[in-house]
Amino acid sequence: MPEARISTPKARGEETRARIVEAAIETLKREGFGGASARAIARTGGFNQALVFYHFGSVRELLLAALDETSARRMARYREVVDGAGNLQELIAAATEVYREDLASGHIKVLAEMIAGASSMPELGPEIVRRIEPWIDFATDAIARVSATLPFPVPVPPEDAAFGIVALFLGVELLTHLEGDGIRSDRLFELGSQLAAMAALLFGTLPASGKGGE
Amino acid sequence: MPEARISTPKARGEETRARIVEAAIETLKREGFGGASARAIARTGGFNQALVFYHFGSVRELLLAALDETSARRMARYREVVDGAGNLQELIAAATEVYREDLASGHIKVLAEMIAGASSMPELGPEIVRRIEPWIDFATDAIARVSATLPFPVPVPPEDAAFGIVALFLGVELLTHLEGDGIRSDRLFELGSQLAAMAALLFGTLPASGKGGE
Repeated sequence: MPEARISTPKARGEETRARIVEAAIETLKREGFGGASARAIARTGGFNQALVFYHFGSVRELLLAALDETSARRMARYREVVDGAGNLQELIAAATEVYREDLASGHIKVLAEMIAGASSMPELGPEIVRRIEPWIDFATDAIARVSATLPFPVPVPPEDAAFGIVALFLGVELLTHLEGDGIRSDRLFELGSQLAAMAALLFGTLPASGKGGE
Repeated sequence: MPEARISTPKARGEETRARIVEAAIETLKREGFGGASARAIARTGGFNQALVFYHFGSVRELLLAALDETSARRMARYREVVDGAGNLQELIAAATEVYREDLASGHIKVLAEMIAGASSMPELGPEIVRRIEPWIDFATDAIARVSATLPFPVPVPPEDAAFGIVALFLGVELLTHLEGDGIRSDRLFELGSQLAAMAALLFGTLPASGKGGE
């Protein structure tokens, strides 16, 4: 265990942490929460399992760091795609794209495994929810931004709509993950874009002399 | 183990099965999927654990029967409440009520534990989804029925909307379950009923010859 004891430069420590987190992500994806022991993670990464405890204190903290990492990656990608969406239809198209990537990237597998882990480790529950909060903030911003482009006032507090959308994503992704087939969810997203087109048409063509139509 | 060997009347067998299922539900609620062994379930119910295998073949089958049972109970209650709803606003009020009951009754705990169990027993995943299908059918019927009372055509295939609603329920219930506090979800349901009222107002006052008043 010399790596852990000698005083390494900060950069080296960061690198080691990143490598351990990566091994934890891989192990969660491949062996699930139940299989993600310090020993299994160390085997995946080819390092000594004592490094887990040296750098993270506990397997629990490491697994949360793994969830933080996949969340941060997905968030960066969501920002990129969603910030490019100028209106509701483009936003729904963007949401469909990143949703498919969520599944393909294994982020949903990691999240589903952590949610599963909350069963045997109940203190994980609030920690996972805390990590979902930034997604609600993100969705709130996206909704507020797109709302401003709509030809009608949106009668919904953006943060409440955002909670609903994040919960819907979670539900759809968990069902798809459990089922191992995305046919129904594909239809749901298609439906969303049809609805957005219809709403634009309907509200866009209301006799809206100023606000007269409402 | 004489109970299991001698040829008991059918009614007696049903009674025993029901008792075992009840013990499995209690054990899932109290000790989670990870704690729901044949031994623990037998201890909860005060019977010999061999009865589990005699009546259900495996713990897995028993746990699925437990999920079937809490689902069937909730479905009966949903039917009762939702069938009494004559329009969209009443339907949302009904959904709010039964959602709170879902949490209070422990059904969501049982479902969340089974979803967690799919982590260590992947073949559970499709079985759980199969048990969610009747809920999609149920929501499809409710949506189709209420759609007919709306003063405007609903541009959405009811079964697609139903999948979205069931996924939303699942997401909201899992988040609430993880968080252990229902404040956000309460706001979401409140929002739903406000939206329904607004939609009724908005569409009800469209210059739609004949439907004008609403």
